[in-house]
Amino acid sequence: MTETHTSDESINVAELGEILLGQWAETRKLARELAALPDVHKIEGLTHFEHRERAFGQLKLLVDAKAVHRAFPKRLGGSEDHGGNVAGFEELVTADPSLQIKAGVQWGLFGAAVMHLGSQEHQDKWLPGIMSLEIPGSFAMTETGHGSDVASIATTATYDEATEEFVIHTPFRAAWKDYIGNAAIDGLAAVVFAQLVTKGVNHGVHAFYVQLRDPQTHEFMPGVGGEDDGIKGGLNGIDNGRLHFDQVRVPRTNLLNRYGNVDAEGNYSSPIASPGRRFFTMIGTLVQGRVSLDGAAVAASKVALKIAIQYASERRQFNASSDTEEEVLLDYQRHQRRLFSRLATTYAASFAHEQLLKKFDDVFSGAHDTDEDRQDLETLAAALKSLSTWHALDTLQETREACGGSGFLIENRFASLRADLDIYATFEGDNTILLQLVAKRLLADYAKEFRNVDFGVLARFAFNQAADVAVNKTGLRQVAQFVADTGSVQRSAIALKDEESQRALLTERVEAMVAEVGNALKDAAKLPQAKAAAIFNQHQDELVEAARAHAELLQWEAFTEGLTKVSDPQTKEVLTWVRDLFGLGLIEKHLSWYLMNGRLSMQRARTVGDYINRLLTKIRPHALDLVDAFGYGQEHLRAPIASGAEKLRQDEAADYFRKQRASGSAPIDEKILLLKQKQASKKR
Amino acid sequence: MTETHTSDESINVAELGEILLGQWAETRKLARELAALPDVHKIEGLTHFEHRERAFGQLKLLVDAKAVHRAFPKRLGGSEDHGGNVAGFEELVTADPSLQIKAGVQWGLFGAAVMHLGSQEHQDKWLPGIMSLEIPGSFAMTETGHGSDVASIATTATYDEATEEFVIHTPFRAAWKDYIGNAAIDGLAAVVFAQLVTKGVNHGVHAFYVQLRDPQTHEFMPGVGGEDDGIKGGLNGIDNGRLHFDQVRVPRTNLLNRYGNVDAEGNYSSPIASPGRRFFTMIGTLVQGRVSLDGAAVAASKVALKIAIQYASERRQFNASSDTEEEVLLDYQRHQRRLFSRLATTYAASFAHEQLLKKFDDVFSGAHDTDEDRQDLETLAAALKSLSTWHALDTLQETREACGGSGFLIENRFASLRADLDIYATFEGDNTILLQLVAKRLLADYAKEFRNVDFGVLARFAFNQAADVAVNKTGLRQVAQFVADTGSVQRSAIALKDEESQRALLTERVEAMVAEVGNALKDAAKLPQAKAAAIFNQHQDELVEAARAHAELLQWEAFTEGLTKVSDPQTKEVLTWVRDLFGLGLIEKHLSWYLMNGRLSMQRARTVGDYINRLLTKIRPHALDLVDAFGYGQEHLRAPIASGAEKLRQDEAADYFRKQRASGSAPIDEKILLLKQKQASKKR
Repeated sequence: MTETHTSDESINVAELGEILLGQWAETRKLARELAALPDVHKIEGLTHFEHRERAFGQLKLLVDAKAVHRAFPKRLGGSEDHGGNVAGFEELVTADPSLQIKAGVQWGLFGAAVMHLGSQEHQDKWLPGIMSLEIPGSFAMTETGHGSDVASIATTATYDEATEEFVIHTPFRAAWKDYIGNAAIDGLAAVVFAQLVTKGVNHGVHAFYVQLRDPQTHEFMPGVGGEDDGIKGGLNGIDNGRLHFDQVRVPRTNLLNRYGNVDAEGNYSSPIASPGRRFFTMIGTLVQGRVSLDGAAVAASKVALKIAIQYASERRQFNASSDTEEEVLLDYQRHQRRLFSRLATTYAASFAHEQLLKKFDDVFSGAHDTDEDRQDLETLAAALKSLSTWHALDTLQETREACGGSGFLIENRFASLRADLDIYATFEGDNTILLQLVAKRLLADYAKEFRNVDFGVLARFAFNQAADVAVNKTGLRQVAQFVADTGSVQRSAIALKDEESQRALLTERVEAMVAEVGNALKDAAKLPQAKAAAIFNQHQDELVEAARAHAELLQWEAFTEGLTKVSDPQTKEVLTWVRDLFGLGLIEKHLSWYLMNGRLSMQRARTVGDYINRLLTKIRPHALDLVDAFGYGQEHLRAPIASGAEKLRQDEAADYFRKQRASGSAPIDEKILLLKQKQASKKR
Repeated sequence: MTETHTSDESINVAELGEILLGQWAETRKLARELAALPDVHKIEGLTHFEHRERAFGQLKLLVDAKAVHRAFPKRLGGSEDHGGNVAGFEELVTADPSLQIKAGVQWGLFGAAVMHLGSQEHQDKWLPGIMSLEIPGSFAMTETGHGSDVASIATTATYDEATEEFVIHTPFRAAWKDYIGNAAIDGLAAVVFAQLVTKGVNHGVHAFYVQLRDPQTHEFMPGVGGEDDGIKGGLNGIDNGRLHFDQVRVPRTNLLNRYGNVDAEGNYSSPIASPGRRFFTMIGTLVQGRVSLDGAAVAASKVALKIAIQYASERRQFNASSDTEEEVLLDYQRHQRRLFSRLATTYAASFAHEQLLKKFDDVFSGAHDTDEDRQDLETLAAALKSLSTWHALDTLQETREACGGSGFLIENRFASLRADLDIYATFEGDNTILLQLVAKRLLADYAKEFRNVDFGVLARFAFNQAADVAVNKTGLRQVAQFVADTGSVQRSAIALKDEESQRALLTERVEAMVAEVGNALKDAAKLPQAKAAAIFNQHQDELVEAARAHAELLQWEAFTEGLTKVSDPQTKEVLTWVRDLFGLGLIEKHLSWYLMNGRLSMQRARTVGDYINRLLTKIRPHALDLVDAFGYGQEHLRAPIASGAEKLRQDEAADYFRKQRASGSAPIDEKILLLKQKQASKKR
């Protein structure tokens, strides 16, 4: 399936591949076998109508292959394997992201909402039909007027004691449900999120099971209406649409009542007293969407890099170093920078995703399911999903450009995957807003520490308040001092590649950034609301950047932890270079911060770029092995330029010129002729 | 056509709009009127077959509207207006980039090659049919095996004295012409680039007029073959394809012989003795492609920013500062950073493009057409096209994300424009390679200065070789000293916004970077070829970054020059803030360089971010005016979210809640109820 490139010095591709497959390796392999089947592949150039039909048909193939039931209760035919379910789901992205996300709508959102927010009775009633696709359904949360601010949606579900029904109602145009998968065509039912109102009190957002269409006629039920969202930038195999409800009545028991119930008399009760905590608990059960997008984004990045690096190792262009042979693209420094830096980030994101998936499985299997575990999971998912989905878009674009015009042909995948993955950056939580969630958590942790600790720790948090501090008081001093002492670029590079130095630099940056914003905001809570909001807003950019720094550190830590799993020494050495490239790449990206805040001397900072360039040349011989370890075969890549066709073309061309030279029939170049004439005239 | 937003403090949108329209304002207005017609608009969701047919039909509309003949000779019905021709062409991007590029293939490449590389006889023979679209044609330069390295294409045109014909031949698969517009379906003829061989000498790349298809049957001529490139990431209104030639014979006189001729006996002659200079002169006549992509990229960025900023000024989300009213997106600091920084760059790119277009017109009108002028034009076009096309992709992505899910709907233009413009980054010269051309020119200039100057100037170029120099010897010292003296953030900000400080910082960076690479490479020329190439490659990344720095400086200078054209004082003040945002944005982006090289103190560097944040709040009230000055109306935007629909939705929602509160029928929030109960129980 995957070519391996062996030499005496080569890394152990098989071992590395298994490590990357992670805990759910067997499930991933099964899912990749499924994703290899032509029947589930995206066909380019279909109209969105045709693509939707095809994707719906493909969902049935997933049901038949039992590819989508791993998370559901055992008593209903599932296997209650939450981690495996997500792992298998992620791998579908190589077949067609529309198929993946359409499956996500049906089973990961619609089905999961019934499972996590409903009672056992609800599960028994609806899950079998959802699992079998007898009931295609929608997850009707987002409204035209409210995307990421779910708590503010305006659809209401008002309890009518007289009939023991909830009345679902859309009060105005901005409250229409929007961008809802399965809403335009296929959905027969939906889990609709609405403000639950009973006895004049609004108990916040709850979920209701609502019949959308008549299963026989496929017409909207009375009071239900909608619109087709039409063509999108990608994912056109999914029939996204809008929904609205005009006093639509559903039985009281259609409230998915795990976290909030209304009795026949209209009395509200909940196992969670705090409305805020209740809301976040309900929303938190749906975190798997973010987890799986993180994994899918990593998978797409791997596919893109395998294609581009394979091509760059065969494609020749410009002949700087020889008159007769052109250079392979991958030997150009700039090309290495473009591709290897993204390769390093992809490895980091892959190891980080594996940690996230384990955390997710720990919580949902019940193995480690405290409030704190759930909060950690939320934060981790928000942090990693943001970075990996942006990274995938960046990687798909850079790899596309690195393959020039052939990268733009849809057959070579980049443009198609990029169009489909574009929305990953803003759905299941807008990345910018997710990073603000992360930042708030960091601030909350900081505030806790701030309250309970002695001055020493406070000073450590606050050190960067003093302008132009030369070197701070922690472990880093030793490193910086070392440079100041010796002035040796060579030796300072050794220190920078030291794991502890990288960790210290990355960790301190997060702490210092959080402390700086925390300090600026610490009195805001005492101010009037508008004033406090204004101060918060003045630091919004810093907050987002602090969260990003935190997420980058999490990726780096995961990569470093991943290194410990490698047993083959050569593989470990090469992978450590890749980790160093990732770590130093982060330090280079934020170099101005390290300089401004006295964490790196000017002299030391100037060594970072050179050291990165040296890492590129070290990694170069192993680049193909590193992408082969991703384990995707031609049936997943499906890119003619990664099939070896370019090498055949190059060999044919080289052979032609070689034979021509040997035969003496090659025309002489005018430039060379002129040179000879010049030399001849000089002799005369 | 365009809404204006007036207040006492508002800027003069009309004046600014005219300045942005520039020297060819009237032509641009005419072209925008044309681009406003529904018949030329892109229809989303067509198959690529349907889209191609539509685009071909639209070309005829352009002919009828006399929109595409401005560059052609007056004696053939053109107006020899080169600047106006490109200006009008650029504006077509708002209608459909496929239409624009398809027109570019027909008249800007195929027609222009006949005009610039052919004799008057060639022009008289073929241009009328090209202009009328009687002869749809291709520009067959790029080969599968050679993209940006045109000098190395492998197609040959060998002169046969016996028949007085050239034999066009494709020796192997890599030499197939590829990605050629009009090649898959429409092209009846082509200008084919091939190595001209006569009497056993290869005189390098020349252009030949070749009949591709029989005008009656539309079948390929004998010996000509080809393939359809199929679906692409965008621009699917264009029938790109591949072409190959099996010993295809064309008359000797089909050589477009302006820069190189072969007489009947097979003797080659050229007005340009040097084969290298001859090649670059011939290629240089086709620079208008790069010029027009630069302008089109700027136009697309303007459209995207108008849509996103209009939406952000109406859309509300999250209510941090008030219980009843949510914030407008454009009031969030992060949102301002995302959009205004790109707005500033778009203004810079717009002014820079106007300078490029004038330079282009000067050369091609013959007003200023020395060798040096042509070289300057080449360098300027390469520098600006690279930055502006990348900027457009970045802007289209960021504006898409800034509009969330609605940004992903194809009806709101971002995703569609982004897909179409993707290839702009690598066609008409891969941006990375174009920047290397710029860098080579910078190095050549540096070498000249290096040879002729005294040690003082050399030292100025070489100052950054010394590690950790605190402050260099030029004008900047005064600025840096000022901060060191006072330590006042407020006052140092005043200095940073000073035009001369920005210029000095940006200029010195270019000089220092070029000097650093120049110094590293200065002995390479004496080394063996392979060794020299290796050293060059070790500095490739620095070279590209030096070129980028140069291009950014060009944009900044153009923006600064543009400010002098503004007469209204309020407009000038606001536009100066935007220029400062652009300049300080560049300095912030490269802050680590300024710190590492002692150009900014740590303390000063720490003020840059704050100053940028203050600029954002100053620009905020004028943001809509600044995008309205671009002058695009609803018929160009065609984005429902920029139509005012969002404001209507928000007003309707606010009105609903206002009335509900007034009526006393609003349900009480559970959180507030709990708070009241708590307070009541305390009293008890």
